Amino acid sequence: MKIGLIGLGKMGYNLALNLKKCGHQVIGHDVSQDTMHQINGEGVPTSASLGGLIEELGEKRVVWLLIPSGGPVDEVLSQLKPLLSKGDMIVEGGNSNYKDSIRRAQEWSDLEIDYLDCGTSGGTEGALNGICAMLGGSKSAFDRIEPVLKDISLPGAYLYCGGPGSGHYVKMIHNGIEYGMMQAIAEGFEMLQKSEMDLDLAAIAGLWNQGSVVRSWLMELTERALKKEPDLGSIKGIMHSSGEGKWTLEDALDKQIATPVIALSLIMRYRSLEDDSFAGKVVAALRNEFGGHALVKK
Amino acid sequence: MKIGLIGLGKMGYNLALNLKKCGHQVIGHDVSQDTMHQINGEGVPTSASLGGLIEELGEKRVVWLLIPSGGPVDEVLSQLKPLLSKGDMIVEGGNSNYKDSIRRAQEWSDLEIDYLDCGTSGGTEGALNGICAMLGGSKSAFDRIEPVLKDISLPGAYLYCGGPGSGHYVKMIHNGIEYGMMQAIAEGFEMLQKSEMDLDLAAIAGLWNQGSVVRSWLMELTERALKKEPDLGSIKGIMHSSGEGKWTLEDALDKQIATPVIALSLIMRYRSLEDDSFAGKVVAALRNEFGGHALVKK
Repeated sequence: MKIGLIGLGKMGYNLALNLKKCGHQVIGHDVSQDTMHQINGEGVPTSASLGGLIEELGEKRVVWLLIPSGGPVDEVLSQLKPLLSKGDMIVEGGNSNYKDSIRRAQEWSDLEIDYLDCGTSGGTEGALNGICAMLGGSKSAFDRIEPVLKDISLPGAYLYCGGPGSGHYVKMIHNGIEYGMMQAIAEGFEMLQKSEMDLDLAAIAGLWNQGSVVRSWLMELTERALKKEPDLGSIKGIMHSSGEGKWTLEDALDKQIATPVIALSLIMRYRSLEDDSFAGKVVAALRNEFGGHALVKK
Repeated sequence: MKIGLIGLGKMGYNLALNLKKCGHQVIGHDVSQDTMHQINGEGVPTSASLGGLIEELGEKRVVWLLIPSGGPVDEVLSQLKPLLSKGDMIVEGGNSNYKDSIRRAQEWSDLEIDYLDCGTSGGTEGALNGICAMLGGSKSAFDRIEPVLKDISLPGAYLYCGGPGSGHYVKMIHNGIEYGMMQAIAEGFEMLQKSEMDLDLAAIAGLWNQGSVVRSWLMELTERALKKEPDLGSIKGIMHSSGEGKWTLEDALDKQIATPVIALSLIMRYRSLEDDSFAGKVVAALRNEFGGHALVKK
């Protein structure tokens, strides 16, 4: 199938190569000229402008977006609006908020243009070798793109989740679970690292990937990281987040669902952004005020 | 190797079959006559008494324990004390507290009897088809039993962790991580289940096991359970625990290590044991006292 791929970042670049490898005719576009030049070198043609890209796609176009969620997606969609025609299809494969996806699907539906939201998992390696895809939108749109999904996903690794937004909703929950699993692994390894027993953390992670209850891809990545650098000494423990954990918690709060582990995983990420905390100062000051407990002065 | 296996419960029974399958001469013992009779039917001989078992093992005995942690282990060990001799070896494969294992190793060391603590993971399926084993104790004792470990473990799935207690310590942390991972998965699926989108939870778990970031054995078990019964309607959400999560948290508290996810995973298990909570009554009463907020009456 002929596919216009907008966004050749870490995920999009590899997905373009994946599509090409599967025999699809992919034409890329990115804001970075350098990136486009680089992927040309790998045999993927690009179009310098969105207009040019859409023109090259001919009729019954399929446009696949892999760009940062929020403003950038709305920006590109508004640029696409005058360029696309009835019968075209948009697949939005980024980490968008599912509420945005529901709104956008409605807007494009009014133009009789199919809009699928596609949660994409598997990291950059998955993008290259086989994604895990969660699709939301109309079933007929899904049916139309299914042959492509089948090619670029691992066996059995794509699912029609339901109506608009459900692909990104399922991906959001996936990421919420991921936050909790990562924090659980992290807490356990901090305990191993602080043990007086002089344990070999990389060997333990490796062991646990062989038949233990906690075997998982995240544990494999833990093993890989610890084998590179057993004390992770070159890394500062700052844990950024890109929104999906926050949205998961917001959704849980809206629905009054008790999700303490997902909540605390997110909150520990926020705590990690601060070297010191004002909350810490407040508690230290209060302990000093009521009990004369010693303060650590700056 | 000739091995006396004490404790033919869910894990021990399968481990006996595993040992036999690997060509080892295993003689079992259990408090239940029925269980011993059952395993005799599978070709594993048993001895009705501990004394008889030890006698049948001859010299340089290897006694493997897979019995409930705490009192039962101490009880069996005290019965074994007059029966074993210098040069014998005990492998304690249950979920013991690592502090108990350190104490016991010292006691047996005084008698010149090797004592290895062996954290055993992989569930009952692993016990049968290949365990994941974490060993603590003297290196020479480990070297002696290594050929057996190699046979009954999955490839690469046994590790000499270090001195006495380290096998059970590493297993304890493994279980602490397991608590957090399970609670993260559970919270995510509760959100999927409460979604207005009418999602197919079993299909989603199945999808996530194909190349997603959260793919894991626990997710495979989630898929299996949801395929059996999509709403898990026959199960009450009571989450028992057998000690390892609590010990992990106690150890973290002793060492002042911030482990909120492991802590909350344990606390949510405790909360699940109560249909109603006194803490809930207190908060409801206080809201009523200060703000006249309505109470739900029994």
